[in-house]
Amino acid sequence: MFAGAQVSLYPMTDRFVDVIVSSLTALDPWRDRLRIETDDISTLIVGPPEVLFPALRDFYAAAAGTGHHVVLRATLSRGCPGEPDDPICQTSALANPAQPLSERQAAALGVLADAVETGQTADAQFSLYVMGAGNHMAEIMGSIDFLKNSGTFNRSKNFCTRLSGDAGVVFAALQQAFCCFGPPEGHVTIDLTVSANSPSAR
Amino acid sequence: MFAGAQVSLYPMTDRFVDVIVSSLTALDPWRDRLRIETDDISTLIVGPPEVLFPALRDFYAAAAGTGHHVVLRATLSRGCPGEPDDPICQTSALANPAQPLSERQAAALGVLADAVETGQTADAQFSLYVMGAGNHMAEIMGSIDFLKNSGTFNRSKNFCTRLSGDAGVVFAALQQAFCCFGPPEGHVTIDLTVSANSPSAR
Repeated sequence: MFAGAQVSLYPMTDRFVDVIVSSLTALDPWRDRLRIETDDISTLIVGPPEVLFPALRDFYAAAAGTGHHVVLRATLSRGCPGEPDDPICQTSALANPAQPLSERQAAALGVLADAVETGQTADAQFSLYVMGAGNHMAEIMGSIDFLKNSGTFNRSKNFCTRLSGDAGVVFAALQQAFCCFGPPEGHVTIDLTVSANSPSAR
Repeated sequence: MFAGAQVSLYPMTDRFVDVIVSSLTALDPWRDRLRIETDDISTLIVGPPEVLFPALRDFYAAAAGTGHHVVLRATLSRGCPGEPDDPICQTSALANPAQPLSERQAAALGVLADAVETGQTADAQFSLYVMGAGNHMAEIMGSIDFLKNSGTFNRSKNFCTRLSGDAGVVFAALQQAFCCFGPPEGHVTIDLTVSANSPSAR
């Protein structure tokens, strides 16, 4: 299995380089379990979902804590058939697809009760894509039903779902959506945007 | 059919609101053929690909022309089974999937010869997702082969493909990738990032 993300941070300030560099230190506790490579457009972070999502949460919370309007953008993927297996991605976080949707939804909700509070609000929107499966819409709708009961659901928008809440529970909910829906051998991706300190009304 | 995008512009400057507002005027010539709705995270633009992509090109080129480091982000979608049909999305731009990949690739390359020059460079990366089809990877690899011959191909990255060139040809190539691969009745999405004036080396 290969899993990871292309991640970018966009601070809407003249001091954007300082905000990016200082926020990146929040990844330090996670670095030994991730492979990280940066270019001018994004940072590739390779690793299992149970490390990747908390690392993104801490990176986002550090950036949001600067008080600037910042946006974290990520293209997350697991099981892309075009990528090689990588031992660093070994994970026990994926749900058993033989379990009915309702059981997977209940288990995902149970995990959220343990989410860490960060003190930073996350206004997120994301699209979950499940490929190669027979009925991809059933899995996508199943994850949306889970999110509606997660306490983070804000509203459905065209092409995506809007979440709001403390960054701790929002990133935990995103991790569950990524891990519990779509087959473990399948190709699942998320297109994610998380915004902090926007001057626009929600 | 329903088609469109959730679009955001991220100017890395204290004057980000001014850059966004001034760049939005570039959409004016396209507005009568699009439905546009804005909230605090993104702008929904609904319309057919042959209007949507040139509109995004002009929006990006206007923002890049300010000289600031700006990033345009878009979640594009066509044929999502969860969305209603909308007459504004009526299009003749989608390829016939009964045509072999090689013919669709050749037709897509032919269109690029007529691409408008904008004078602005676009450093883009994107992921194309084809859902619900039997062999989604064949269509995705077919679009990547087209891009490798398009003059815009920069390199393959994990989870995405990197393009560079004048914004005119880059957005035209993206439009062909979106329209010529995956069935016309299928659910096809693009996760797109386009960066201008980055201080980082490519």
